[in-house]
Amino acid sequence: MSDFSVTILGCGSAKPSLRHYTSAQLVNHRSNLFLIDCGEGVQRAMLRNGISMHKIGHIFLSHLHGDHCLGLVGLISTLGLGQRTGKIVIHACSDAERVFRPLFDFFCPQLSMEVEFQAFDHTKSEIIYEDKSLEIITIPLHHRVPCAGFLFREKPKPRHLLVEECQKYDIPTAYYQGITMGRDWTMADGTVIANADLTTDPSPSKSYAYCSDTIYAESIVPIIKGCDLLYHEATFANDLSAISKERGHSTALEAGTIARLAEVKQLVIGHFSSRYDEEGEQSLLAEAKSVFENTVLAKERKVLEL
Amino acid sequence: MSDFSVTILGCGSAKPSLRHYTSAQLVNHRSNLFLIDCGEGVQRAMLRNGISMHKIGHIFLSHLHGDHCLGLVGLISTLGLGQRTGKIVIHACSDAERVFRPLFDFFCPQLSMEVEFQAFDHTKSEIIYEDKSLEIITIPLHHRVPCAGFLFREKPKPRHLLVEECQKYDIPTAYYQGITMGRDWTMADGTVIANADLTTDPSPSKSYAYCSDTIYAESIVPIIKGCDLLYHEATFANDLSAISKERGHSTALEAGTIARLAEVKQLVIGHFSSRYDEEGEQSLLAEAKSVFENTVLAKERKVLEL
Repeated sequence: MSDFSVTILGCGSAKPSLRHYTSAQLVNHRSNLFLIDCGEGVQRAMLRNGISMHKIGHIFLSHLHGDHCLGLVGLISTLGLGQRTGKIVIHACSDAERVFRPLFDFFCPQLSMEVEFQAFDHTKSEIIYEDKSLEIITIPLHHRVPCAGFLFREKPKPRHLLVEECQKYDIPTAYYQGITMGRDWTMADGTVIANADLTTDPSPSKSYAYCSDTIYAESIVPIIKGCDLLYHEATFANDLSAISKERGHSTALEAGTIARLAEVKQLVIGHFSSRYDEEGEQSLLAEAKSVFENTVLAKERKVLEL
Repeated sequence: MSDFSVTILGCGSAKPSLRHYTSAQLVNHRSNLFLIDCGEGVQRAMLRNGISMHKIGHIFLSHLHGDHCLGLVGLISTLGLGQRTGKIVIHACSDAERVFRPLFDFFCPQLSMEVEFQAFDHTKSEIIYEDKSLEIITIPLHHRVPCAGFLFREKPKPRHLLVEECQKYDIPTAYYQGITMGRDWTMADGTVIANADLTTDPSPSKSYAYCSDTIYAESIVPIIKGCDLLYHEATFANDLSAISKERGHSTALEAGTIARLAEVKQLVIGHFSSRYDEEGEQSLLAEAKSVFENTVLAKERKVLEL
């Protein structure tokens, strides 16, 4: 298993069905767990996947439609019952704290951990989370309410050290980290050993973009350009493009087009209208594939490795 | 299938597990659908049971702990999306409207139906719903927050008409209804035909009592006396009676004792702590049966006919 993966917890749209849970995904980056959206049933979905929900540190809400956030109070309540300590950060638009804080106060007044809201401006693309190996950037989307997607982007990784080469020049191990960062080595006699002789290129930095819910918006293309995996909503097939646009959603054809324009490596489509059965979803897949071949259907319990 | 049944939608307690959904039940009385409690996942549970959720007219919330009501916003939202018209009445303690109305306004501002809250006083037993064949009565319970159970009691049914006897006395059919209500018949010559000669006893009126969550409380016995089916919470086994009491819950032994004291016909226990697996729940059953033999375990999708 890689150290960067996405687990689909729910990929249905608002109207409930037995085919799908409502929106939620878990991103695991080097054992740091990030929850994206938090539809009703998210706890059950995590239990089914054997996910240790107590390890979630950050929750990202794309927007405040019920199918993307109504599992939040139950989840926070459970974590509080479980004696989780420390802090959970909820990243969402500015309305979120006004809506949810009173519910936490009412339904889970004795939480064992702190819950902090960090509001983002959904109209611009900005870094809202950062650690030493990852940054998370908002992707302004266009839906019926303020909405943003999230780009999980690994920072440049250290170069691979050629240990035998370093030993050949008697470089103390204390300097190895600097060399993996790209530094050259200067010998006692002043000779400079180029970094290229001491290291090889680093593993590629991977990126994952989550875009739900949104109308077709080419404005997101520069932000998600070249990402390794794109989740893009495809609520409807293109024969329902009028309804799709009216409701602030995308068709499978539009999702494929965005993937092609952004030259991503793989596309996963989801947020399917409950009108589609297995066969209907295969049609959505075919429609997206007609413009972007490397497309797969989201499905609950599916784990996508980056 | 009888015209009075209870479907268990969820019988777990607050901590989520894959064994159970959180609390919810559907009472079907002559095709009138009543939802009792509304834990997260209630819509999925109804879909699994083939229940037409759009036919629910009344929702009863025993109390405002999340595992009993966090599915409410999603449900109301779905019903509003589905173009349900008319009115849904939510019967709950007085805090419910303060907590949930702002959520309905925020998450489902364009509902196609009216949502009315009717607050009950959880400290006394009173009729909170009535139609021509059924009444629903609160049962004051004792939990950590205001809490009430619900007694669904059929009104006395009409007596069975002996049509051939009525025809023998040339009674016009327009009078049949009055006779099923117990009236005698007076002939043209003044002779009185006793009702007992024209009818036989009615079918028995059935009753169902829902009691969750509560500590052991003999005060409920007179209210539920002789009911046909009692759902009583049994969160813990008796070896955890100290924890049980501290958290405002009952043990299986206590549930059985209440059933015995109230001389109910059948007991169904539920609201199981997630610490119990299949074997643990069988122990809870054995414990309840040790004082009240006719006990069964609640289980999702189980339909209990009255």
